[in-house]
Amino acid sequence: MSTVTANMSMSLDGFVNHPTDGVDTLFRWYSRGEVVTGTDGDHDWEFKTDASEAQDLQGAKDSIGAIVYGRRSFDAAEGWHGTHPLGVPVVVLTHSAPRDWEYAGRSVHFVTEGGIAAAIARGRELGGGRTVVIGSADLTQQALNEGLLDELTVDLVAAMLGAGTRFFDNLKGAPYELEQTSVRPGNGVTHLAYRVVKP
Amino acid sequence: MSTVTANMSMSLDGFVNHPTDGVDTLFRWYSRGEVVTGTDGDHDWEFKTDASEAQDLQGAKDSIGAIVYGRRSFDAAEGWHGTHPLGVPVVVLTHSAPRDWEYAGRSVHFVTEGGIAAAIARGRELGGGRTVVIGSADLTQQALNEGLLDELTVDLVAAMLGAGTRFFDNLKGAPYELEQTSVRPGNGVTHLAYRVVKP
Repeated sequence: MSTVTANMSMSLDGFVNHPTDGVDTLFRWYSRGEVVTGTDGDHDWEFKTDASEAQDLQGAKDSIGAIVYGRRSFDAAEGWHGTHPLGVPVVVLTHSAPRDWEYAGRSVHFVTEGGIAAAIARGRELGGGRTVVIGSADLTQQALNEGLLDELTVDLVAAMLGAGTRFFDNLKGAPYELEQTSVRPGNGVTHLAYRVVKP
Repeated sequence: MSTVTANMSMSLDGFVNHPTDGVDTLFRWYSRGEVVTGTDGDHDWEFKTDASEAQDLQGAKDSIGAIVYGRRSFDAAEGWHGTHPLGVPVVVLTHSAPRDWEYAGRSVHFVTEGGIAAAIARGRELGGGRTVVIGSADLTQQALNEGLLDELTVDLVAAMLGAGTRFFDNLKGAPYELEQTSVRPGNGVTHLAYRVVKP
C-alpha cells in the first residue's frame, strides 16, 4: 500500500502559521535560493531554492500521488485556483464541499465523510500507488493518533513565532517513537525526515 | 562580555520533559554511543556518545563558565550532589536557597533576587569570561524575552512525547529571528545551533 507521510514548514517553537504573519516567515525558504522549480496551474510565482531543495521539489512532483489538506488550508490558499503548485491531485477533508466553486472539475477533490481515513483512501485512489502527503496540522495529528502515518518530514525554520497553530498538539496516543531517516541543512531551514515506529 | 547560550534536549513536539517519563527518552542519546566521556563529582555513570558528540561534551567542559538552572531542575537532579557532571559551576535561581544542604560549599551557587539577569551576572562572575549556559526552559524564555540570549542549541530528539514542559512557550517578545549556525545529525537526535538575531 502507498506510503502516508506528512510535511509542513514549522518554526523552532513548533508553529505552522502565525495569526498575523501567516506562513510568510515559514515559507521564505521556498524563495531564498537560485534554482528555479516551476509551478503548475494558475500561479504567477516559482520556487527558488538551493539545488538540493530543487531536486527534492522535482522529486515531490514525481513521487506524490495526492496531498490531503483540511478546509482551513484550502480556504487560506484560495483553493490553489484549482491546481496545486506541485501539479498533483489534492484531497480536501471538509464537512461540506463548496458549491458552484469557480475551479470545480480541476484537480481538487472533496471528502465530506469518514474522516482522515477516508481522505487518505481517496488520496490513494487518486495517486495510483504513489505517496499520499498530509499537509495540515490537525489532520497529521489525527493520522498519528489513528496509526495511519508512516513517515513525517519537517522543514524546521530558523525563527520563533510565539503564537499560531502547532504542528504537533493533541497527540492522544503519544509518546510516539520516531526513527530519523535524514537531516539536511538548507538556507535558514533544516529538512528533517522521520519514520513513525509502529508498536 | 561572555556569551549567553541555552541548551536543552527537546522532543520533536517541543517538550523538555514528560510527566511520567521525565527526561529518560530525551537523554537516551547521552548513553547510546561507544565513546566515553567521564563525569565529574559523585556520579556513577559516564556519557557514552558518538565521537563527534564526545568532542562536543569535552568542548563544553572546557568552554562553559557556568550553567544556570531553575529550582525544579535543581530538585529533579538532587542538586547534582553538589557537583555538575560536566564539572562546571552551577547557578540556581530560586526564591529561597535550601538550608543545611548536604552539599553546600561545592560548586552550586544560589541566586535569590534579581531574576534571570542576576543569575546570568553571577554565572559570568563564576565563569571568568567563558560561556554562560541556561539549562531550564522557563529561564530560557525569560532570557529571550529580556533580550539576554545570544545563542541557542537544541538537541532535537526523534520522539514525540505529547505532554510535559515546552522548551519554547510564553515568548512575549516573539517573533524572534534566528540564524542557523550548525546542524549535525546524531544517533536518534539532531544537534542544532542558532544565533539569536537582535533587532
